[in-house]
Amino acid sequence: MRRFSKTGRLPCFALAALLLLGSCSTARQDADWIWSAGVVLTMDPTRRVLEDGAVVVRGERIVAVGRRADLERSYRAARRIHVSEAVIAPGLINAHTHAPMSLLRGLADDVALQDWLEKYVFPVEAKFVSPDFVRAGTRLACLEMALGGVTTFADMYYYEDAVAEATRECGLRGVLGETILNFPAPDAADFQQALDYTERFVRRFQGDPLIVPAVAPHALYTNSEESLRASRALANRYGVPLLTHLAETRQEWDQAMARFGKSPVAVYEQLGLFEGPTVTAHCVWLEELDLRILSRRGVGVAHCPSSNMKLASGVAPVTKMLAAGIPVGLGTDGPGGSNNDFNLFEEMDLAAKLQKVSTGDPRALPAIQAVEMATITGARALGMDREIGSLEPGKRADLILIRLDAAHAVPLFDLYSQLVYALKASDVEHVMVNGRLIVHSGRMLTLNSRAVLLEARRLQSRIAGSVGK
Amino acid sequence: MRRFSKTGRLPCFALAALLLLGSCSTARQDADWIWSAGVVLTMDPTRRVLEDGAVVVRGERIVAVGRRADLERSYRAARRIHVSEAVIAPGLINAHTHAPMSLLRGLADDVALQDWLEKYVFPVEAKFVSPDFVRAGTRLACLEMALGGVTTFADMYYYEDAVAEATRECGLRGVLGETILNFPAPDAADFQQALDYTERFVRRFQGDPLIVPAVAPHALYTNSEESLRASRALANRYGVPLLTHLAETRQEWDQAMARFGKSPVAVYEQLGLFEGPTVTAHCVWLEELDLRILSRRGVGVAHCPSSNMKLASGVAPVTKMLAAGIPVGLGTDGPGGSNNDFNLFEEMDLAAKLQKVSTGDPRALPAIQAVEMATITGARALGMDREIGSLEPGKRADLILIRLDAAHAVPLFDLYSQLVYALKASDVEHVMVNGRLIVHSGRMLTLNSRAVLLEARRLQSRIAGSVGK
Repeated sequence: MRRFSKTGRLPCFALAALLLLGSCSTARQDADWIWSAGVVLTMDPTRRVLEDGAVVVRGERIVAVGRRADLERSYRAARRIHVSEAVIAPGLINAHTHAPMSLLRGLADDVALQDWLEKYVFPVEAKFVSPDFVRAGTRLACLEMALGGVTTFADMYYYEDAVAEATRECGLRGVLGETILNFPAPDAADFQQALDYTERFVRRFQGDPLIVPAVAPHALYTNSEESLRASRALANRYGVPLLTHLAETRQEWDQAMARFGKSPVAVYEQLGLFEGPTVTAHCVWLEELDLRILSRRGVGVAHCPSSNMKLASGVAPVTKMLAAGIPVGLGTDGPGGSNNDFNLFEEMDLAAKLQKVSTGDPRALPAIQAVEMATITGARALGMDREIGSLEPGKRADLILIRLDAAHAVPLFDLYSQLVYALKASDVEHVMVNGRLIVHSGRMLTLNSRAVLLEARRLQSRIAGSVGK
Repeated sequence: MRRFSKTGRLPCFALAALLLLGSCSTARQDADWIWSAGVVLTMDPTRRVLEDGAVVVRGERIVAVGRRADLERSYRAARRIHVSEAVIAPGLINAHTHAPMSLLRGLADDVALQDWLEKYVFPVEAKFVSPDFVRAGTRLACLEMALGGVTTFADMYYYEDAVAEATRECGLRGVLGETILNFPAPDAADFQQALDYTERFVRRFQGDPLIVPAVAPHALYTNSEESLRASRALANRYGVPLLTHLAETRQEWDQAMARFGKSPVAVYEQLGLFEGPTVTAHCVWLEELDLRILSRRGVGVAHCPSSNMKLASGVAPVTKMLAAGIPVGLGTDGPGGSNNDFNLFEEMDLAAKLQKVSTGDPRALPAIQAVEMATITGARALGMDREIGSLEPGKRADLILIRLDAAHAVPLFDLYSQLVYALKASDVEHVMVNGRLIVHSGRMLTLNSRAVLLEARRLQSRIAGSVGK
């Protein structure tokens, strides 16, 4: 425009250029969003890292990933996000948690496992767990997870239909498993009732764009062979995944040896539990044969370093599992004993450091592998790597923008190192799931955060009263 | 006043009450600050936790700690901070770091120690370390530390006078040790030059209200017996502490055994290194005799869980040291290999979890002990527990306010658990050191943060160019 005012009239070549621009402009494809930043971390098969990159979103999916300048020429979008000192990354995947246990955060730490279960968790769950409790806890967990860049989580709890409703309301993606136990649970008197409950739940949520319903037999030490087999059969009848705890503690190992003469993994194999998509949490106690079974069966594993450390369960052989081709993701486990938050940045950091100190090798589990576990490998563990886990055209638009301008984020020599060892959940600025912006400038758009915290505090008072805290 | 307007005139008893109130009011003592919050964590000898508490500050010191209502009646202050959903705590103590290495954050992670030193740290330090580099790095480190609630740090580096100047400018408290080595260092060609440099540094900063100068022979494996003995003598001549690395790696242990037939700790004992106030970083490789020496000599230890894990150094026997009465604080060590940040919240969390998983006991190193390590026990490790480490009248006014209203901070059943396992450095809102407010509402008041980050990025480009990154 300056040029025009300078000459006072519109030269012909400029007019021609404008017309050309106009026709280019109409040739640009429409999109809903263009996100751009100083760096785009794709986690695609070649692990491309794009400087001055952008991601274009239409509807629920990513339509393009590339250099910002190129994509600006090819797409136009009504809504934009641009932060130059930031990285756009795939949304993080929490491969194992119990979201509603957010309400038990810090209820009983630093105690022996048996005391924790018998004096705190079981009585509190028996007394308080209801659909309302589960909904309030899931909202609190989703608030924390979304603000910290988690876009997908795998869950195992009771009243999983209420977990699913709250997850959908918050706009997160969930692989949600209704728990099946041989003991009376808050939502089922026995495992047959639990199976019935689960079947209704699976039928209700199958095909949901955000929710993958799943069948979640609790563990070898809490389930009969019959309930384990029936769980697998139910999962296969509907083609949904099976989630379970496996090989978590030494005690579980000893019990399996005493009862079956086999490792927990070998028992699951013998019972046919791996004959279909399976995600097993923990896998701390494994022998060589177990690694071969998990690898051959394509079983996904959720490594939970915080939980394994805090409960003194042991150190999972993560580098060995990854070397054997087993897809190992990262899980926070549930607050209230195992962990006290839902922070994937801390789990990445811990996973890397724990492998180093336990193997005696500072090169073990390098930063890039920890980032893979929190993104694309985590997606593989959940059987969802065709849909999520990387920024690629055609995949679901699950993406986060992380600021790079905090004091702890400068200087930056290596992006993967920075993500794992330096950046924090509090650096996450914007979050999109399935094409929907759910966190903007560190604020959750899909929830009334204040109301969520108030409700959590109200329940805290009631729980504290009941356990004498 | 409503009552007066209601009656229309001032009854005699009300007039008398007003006069009395007036005289009470003038009887209130003057102070500079009253900080109040929903909870005050004192870390005093009885570990008092005050609900609706307050801390009164005059000049550089705390004059009162108590219930808010009581203190409001006894003191008046021009400046106030009040946040109801928050905890006021003693400032955190980082008992071992190399602040200027903030500029090497993430330069070379996941590599073998020897490669890290020889390919990255030594060449980069030889080329870049200067008073300006050290000042820029210290500012960046102090910015991150202060924002994360660290008010005191113990440092070992080169050009420690520049570290001291920058620390004083930022308003943090530092126990700052000039490094003495038997190799050429950026600021000294040999250990005799280093001793001379150190002596000038000590004389310059002795008696400073914020800086405790110290003598820092690097380690048994980098110093001769002569330089170690001379370092102790210099420290004792001026009555300042000695800081050193000790018993960090298996290699150091093996070398000490080969050279002296003794453990590293026993060698230090034999050389008389503990005959005066001493702070040793790491102490990973210890035997029973070493614990007895450290305990008898009152040696302070800086446990660095991130560093020990990341470099695969091993697991320090922290619970044993604490049981033996050894004051063990927490250190971040320096970024650029050992760690990538200066985050005491993460070190508390790691310290607790690492002891649990390595001892197989979930009750090991409970949350309260981790908080003690970051506060009062850390102060004991540095020989400063009469001045800092807890909120008590007469102590230096080093205090922080941590918000309790983030999603990860709710519910709250146990304050110590919350601090160690759930709260983050990003929850720190206000920070005071020595009676001076240095962070307000998450903003550093003593530095131009933008300029600090710009300078760090400028140096990053130069360093990256030199190592081909």
